[in-house]
Amino acid sequence: MRQVAVVGIGKTAFGAFPDRDLRSLAVEAGQKALENAHATTSQVEAFYLGNFAGPSFVGQNHLAPYVAGGMGMTGIPATRFEAACASSGAAFFHAVSAVAAGLYDVILVTGVEKMTSQSTPKVTEILAGAGDVCGEVRAGATFPALFAMIARRHMYQYGTTREHMAAVAVKNHQNGAKNPLAHMRKVITMEQALSGKPISEPLTVYDCSLISDGAAAVLIAPFERASEFTDKPIRVLGISQTSDHVALDEKADITTFQAVQTSAEKAYKMAGVKSTDIQFAEVHDCFTIAEIVAIEDLGFVKKGEGGPYTLAGGTCIQGERPVNTSGGLKSKGHPVGATGVGQICDVAQQIRGEAGERQVKRNSLGLAQNLGGSGATSVVTILGAA
Amino acid sequence: MRQVAVVGIGKTAFGAFPDRDLRSLAVEAGQKALENAHATTSQVEAFYLGNFAGPSFVGQNHLAPYVAGGMGMTGIPATRFEAACASSGAAFFHAVSAVAAGLYDVILVTGVEKMTSQSTPKVTEILAGAGDVCGEVRAGATFPALFAMIARRHMYQYGTTREHMAAVAVKNHQNGAKNPLAHMRKVITMEQALSGKPISEPLTVYDCSLISDGAAAVLIAPFERASEFTDKPIRVLGISQTSDHVALDEKADITTFQAVQTSAEKAYKMAGVKSTDIQFAEVHDCFTIAEIVAIEDLGFVKKGEGGPYTLAGGTCIQGERPVNTSGGLKSKGHPVGATGVGQICDVAQQIRGEAGERQVKRNSLGLAQNLGGSGATSVVTILGAA
Repeated sequence: MRQVAVVGIGKTAFGAFPDRDLRSLAVEAGQKALENAHATTSQVEAFYLGNFAGPSFVGQNHLAPYVAGGMGMTGIPATRFEAACASSGAAFFHAVSAVAAGLYDVILVTGVEKMTSQSTPKVTEILAGAGDVCGEVRAGATFPALFAMIARRHMYQYGTTREHMAAVAVKNHQNGAKNPLAHMRKVITMEQALSGKPISEPLTVYDCSLISDGAAAVLIAPFERASEFTDKPIRVLGISQTSDHVALDEKADITTFQAVQTSAEKAYKMAGVKSTDIQFAEVHDCFTIAEIVAIEDLGFVKKGEGGPYTLAGGTCIQGERPVNTSGGLKSKGHPVGATGVGQICDVAQQIRGEAGERQVKRNSLGLAQNLGGSGATSVVTILGAA
Repeated sequence: MRQVAVVGIGKTAFGAFPDRDLRSLAVEAGQKALENAHATTSQVEAFYLGNFAGPSFVGQNHLAPYVAGGMGMTGIPATRFEAACASSGAAFFHAVSAVAAGLYDVILVTGVEKMTSQSTPKVTEILAGAGDVCGEVRAGATFPALFAMIARRHMYQYGTTREHMAAVAVKNHQNGAKNPLAHMRKVITMEQALSGKPISEPLTVYDCSLISDGAAAVLIAPFERASEFTDKPIRVLGISQTSDHVALDEKADITTFQAVQTSAEKAYKMAGVKSTDIQFAEVHDCFTIAEIVAIEDLGFVKKGEGGPYTLAGGTCIQGERPVNTSGGLKSKGHPVGATGVGQICDVAQQIRGEAGERQVKRNSLGLAQNLGGSGATSVVTILGAA
């Protein structure tokens, strides 16, 4: 297998854009990634699109050739990958695998979602499609409710508190406020985070990620060809995608995501690194409790220590292991299908030293963790400096 | 690249099954493919699911781990592929590529769609999502309307007649009547086909494929390991997936599908065969005109000769080059996401000599052609005897 490099990155701003349609967002991100790699569409051998629910949000399906055509690309395999909130993580995983195996040299991987044209109740219903509709959803559970159950159990089992979760929100808003592409560039205080409107107790509005429009794209190529595109290639050192049951009640322990643990182990092994070697990470904070569970499952801290570690500042930009310096899904925004590739862009930006006032000091080895549903899909990627 | 073999096939009946849900259909097909290959779920290294619009038809998204979990498979990459009516063709293409490249040895590829729980107008609206929603669909075009335009132009340009199209329907119903898994096992006469209720002129109800529930699955492995699973392995000799613009008005000539021509050329080249070497085929007759265009684009006949060739019996089971011996989408049924893998099963069945009274005599080299939308995705596969 060949080593794969990210040779171009491109993102739209994340936010609510009533005047933009899905395709224009995806095309913008793709074109930015190509420009960033000094590449043209004629060099793209395959197009991998991550999108969760375009047909439900905006009525358009068959999205991969639709977006590719919008960029002037035809005559290549153009395929949409869906794995709930890990849709573009899955697209990236399959694309990296294909380049590693020699199937293609140059693939454009784009993630996109256009959510804000629907009402919040409708968005909640569409998102619930990533859960077990005949079971959980019929019983009334939405995603905030599922993660509220996870939070309750984590509180019971490990003594995690609402302050611990609020600390995730405060940190991520602090980071996102400095990210020019973030959806909600607003610093919040611990008091605000603790007194937010209840959504599904113990989760308040400040524990929930945002409903956003946006797109992100990366151009990948074999590392040996990376210099044709960029003087700042990023190595994909390890990557794994793993599945688990969709319904929470089918999991042995809801305070941990087995798929995250397994995909992390495989990615670490592939990269030849240990969890403690990872210097910084973008993790899937769809809810604040999800970030706490993630840093535990990834092995950054022991099980149950995610909350205290966050409250003590361990994951701040100046901390021991910065997490979600982009602002995370909480503040940067969560256009579902764009999130996985967006994380890859964010980690790459840090490794390139282009994160501005959010720049971390130890920036040669970063990780991205993209979660689908309540843990039925996990994609873990380890990126490193060239 | 390694040669890949289909080592197990499994299909549900296609039809309207009010008592069956999407998952149970997909699980049944997958289990049948595993049984057919004398394999167990523990041998499956990755799960590739083709599905067009499960979230719109039944509300369930995140379908790959949902179906995999229903089969007791966790801890592997489980991913949904969407490319309109070529969704499972795309899943099969990516799976074959992955095994060829050495990424995995054993992949289960399943296609599924559950359509009949929605009303016909709603189904038509969901299917229209595979077209250009902001353009064609907003202007009032549904898929019957788009293919009616293709038919009109083909009639004008090549002298194709309604009798030519009706001959496709009569033949496919004749074949489907002998297929125990077909949706509509009913022989129709030329008179009936010509006097059907108009849907979008010149297309009548007998020119349109069916709205169906159903699933199909194949287990694939490297050819060198095929004997572990079956004594009747099928070789994947050539395969290609290609894209084109989604909107009809962006195509230079609507009487031909550029993506089909390109993917066929690539597949022939990979297999080292010519179009005239192909002995029989399953092609994507979503409408009767589509079968006529397909046999032309695949190079079985010259452009414009598809209609007369069909009327003269060239594509009958006893004819020169049998096409859609399964009954095709017209009579076998068209559960959109299941169609591509279903075609692979049907071609494999012929090569194995297991097609019963539909068995073709020259059965060592067959082709499957799976179309997405009005030609924005095409997957062409060439299968051969071991």
